[in-house]
Amino acid sequence: MSHKPSKEEFNKRFEEITVETEQIFKGKIISLQVDKVKLPNGKMSAREIVKHPGAVAVLAIYEDKMIVVEQYRKPLEKNQIEIPAGKLDPGEEPEEAALRELKEETGFDCSSLQHINSFYTSPGFADEKIVLFLAEDLTRGEMKLDEDEFLSCESITLEQALEYIKEEKISDAKTITAIYAWQIYKLTGKI
Amino acid sequence: MSHKPSKEEFNKRFEEITVETEQIFKGKIISLQVDKVKLPNGKMSAREIVKHPGAVAVLAIYEDKMIVVEQYRKPLEKNQIEIPAGKLDPGEEPEEAALRELKEETGFDCSSLQHINSFYTSPGFADEKIVLFLAEDLTRGEMKLDEDEFLSCESITLEQALEYIKEEKISDAKTITAIYAWQIYKLTGKI
Repeated sequence: MSHKPSKEEFNKRFEEITVETEQIFKGKIISLQVDKVKLPNGKMSAREIVKHPGAVAVLAIYEDKMIVVEQYRKPLEKNQIEIPAGKLDPGEEPEEAALRELKEETGFDCSSLQHINSFYTSPGFADEKIVLFLAEDLTRGEMKLDEDEFLSCESITLEQALEYIKEEKISDAKTITAIYAWQIYKLTGKI
Repeated sequence: MSHKPSKEEFNKRFEEITVETEQIFKGKIISLQVDKVKLPNGKMSAREIVKHPGAVAVLAIYEDKMIVVEQYRKPLEKNQIEIPAGKLDPGEEPEEAALRELKEETGFDCSSLQHINSFYTSPGFADEKIVLFLAEDLTRGEMKLDEDEFLSCESITLEQALEYIKEEKISDAKTITAIYAWQIYKLTGKI
């Protein structure tokens, strides 16, 4: 069943051609549009699409513990424990954003980052892409939260992290991905 | 830095109280609202929130290969290789949805599923939750695609899957999470 199409061919199979775009909403963080599309069988359909500026997240390891932040997530109406993360500012490089968010949310400085992977969070309805980094060699400093940002920071072992996933205290895609990457790193030495 | 608050206390720290909800859009798949909220410091802010019915995804292993589907993702304007997945129908249980999506998209039947984990894809702006299952003991059958669904199905080894992540041919949160879970399963025998 394997095949080797060119990158161009790969990206265009099953292509849906945009016939019309209706802009529904432009907010501070996301915007929403509905595209009228022509399907590969010639029929018309509609796609509801959320546009997002993209984000970064950091698996930060200090004394063999992962640094996590606890914050209120309004869409879920509850607190979540997550790895440090945040949106890209306009024109900002992912590495720069990752170091900035790590500093702001946890107070830690880091001299160098390693890229783990990059992923779309919800490719069915959103273009949000998260770039995930590993930060080791950390130096402890002061948090620099935005005026309207409320969170607390702690550090947990791999065993605690896996337990938190089971309890759904940790239950977001980027944090679970980071914890699994950390476990594989500990098991194989490879990130 | 560790503490043991009750589940109720945990969920309410940093709570943002909804003062007003403005419904912006109600689509076929997602809806969008803007909540005016009162922050813990008493100030007002706005939260842009996408509502989603929730989804399931399946890490399906057949002859030591993972079954993946290739489909066009309009928000990304390109094809993606992902594990079988789909939205919950109204009133549908996650297990039921997972078996249905697996059958529809790949043709495979499965007698029993194991829960791997559950995660929110984008807790900053959306309530979408994915329940991820492991399907082993598969029986091959016929695909049952929706009339307007276009995808192709193949199966890949763990090594190929890890290579696809590096090449960003696989680049969505649920599929990367599933591949890491599979790698850990192979390394430790535990899912």
